[in-house]
Amino acid sequence: MDTPLDKLTEEFRRLPGIGVKTARKLAYYIVQQPASRVDEFVDAIRDAKANMHFCSVCFNLSSQDPCPICSDISRDRSTICVVETPQDVQAIERSGDYHGLYHVLHGALSPLDGVNVEDLRIRELLQRLGNTTVKEVILATDPDVEGEATALYLARLIKTAGIRVTRIARGLPMGGDIEYADEATLAGAVANRQEM
Amino acid sequence: MDTPLDKLTEEFRRLPGIGVKTARKLAYYIVQQPASRVDEFVDAIRDAKANMHFCSVCFNLSSQDPCPICSDISRDRSTICVVETPQDVQAIERSGDYHGLYHVLHGALSPLDGVNVEDLRIRELLQRLGNTTVKEVILATDPDVEGEATALYLARLIKTAGIRVTRIARGLPMGGDIEYADEATLAGAVANRQEM
Ligand SMILES: [Zn+2]
Ligand SMILES: [Zn+2]
Repeated sequence: MDTPLDKLTEEFRRLPGIGVKTARKLAYYIVQQPASRVDEFVDAIRDAKANMHFCSVCFNLSSQDPCPICSDISRDRSTICVVETPQDVQAIERSGDYHGLYHVLHGALSPLDGVNVEDLRIRELLQRLGNTTVKEVILATDPDVEGEATALYLARLIKTAGIRVTRIARGLPMGGDIEYADEATLAGAVANRQEM
Repeated sequence: MDTPLDKLTEEFRRLPGIGVKTARKLAYYIVQQPASRVDEFVDAIRDAKANMHFCSVCFNLSSQDPCPICSDISRDRSTICVVETPQDVQAIERSGDYHGLYHVLHGALSPLDGVNVEDLRIRELLQRLGNTTVKEVILATDPDVEGEATALYLARLIKTAGIRVTRIARGLPMGGDIEYADEATLAGAVANRQEM
């Protein structure tokens, strides 16, 4: 018979990177916390789910629309850095050296996994480039097979429109993940971006 | 400014064994799940917190009182295995060789950390031994400093009452944690328990 504790353990197991032992430990921890702490946890989940949405301009996750980055008039509007995920935006922001705008694709091209052009925010990126005067698009997709394919695809399209296209330097290890790159590597990769 | 996403990340960080990168990953994962999945997660938390309580006999966590182990008439009521946590009960149950009852102390003696006799379910254990005919108490506290001290303390008290007291064999590595012992080691440790 599955107890409520077993069911909570199962829920934790469904989270990314959480194995069965960690899931069990978290479930036991939760039920032994004071009710007020559990309420805080649940409220934080509900609040984040209810209030974090995709920015209608750049598709980053934000509690505002447009997001604080798109709304920040001090940022360089002539440069757009294209990334795969909102986490990548956070990672590049933490690296501190980039002051342009972003565009979040929400994935990378991977036909074998059924991720095609229409599944990413590519149409919205092209519309944005058509409606605004952008001088440079920095392609900061992950340095793996899918990220490289996505960068090549976008570079071809965007250069056709006469816009400068650069790719962040492969200072990042191949097969790596931008989200987990250290800040110096990431700042260097942006600084050494190359013409495509 | 802290966004709802930052606050959820903070909440995940407060869970045991969750570092900042994992916390961030989990928070992003949650807000990008469908609302129905987030509801399932929140409901599982609320349900576990609302329905898991301490058994009034053995102080194990259970959705019933007395718990299924205390209520199971096929179990050997002449033996009580004393453990530190509900997780330890689960671990010994998974090892499959023990068919007696349990008593969960909810910790181990650690005067330096402010955990004294009155902070554990020791009084309740002695009452239980006074009210029932128990022939053997197996001390299955962790094989670390606090667990050994707790076992020695309990052994002295319980032997005074004329009850046989055994300690699980230190087949478990010293400094280890019963909850994470593999099943064979744990089964062997119970089988090779020694007189104290
Ligand atoms: Zn935005
Ligand atoms: Zn019980």
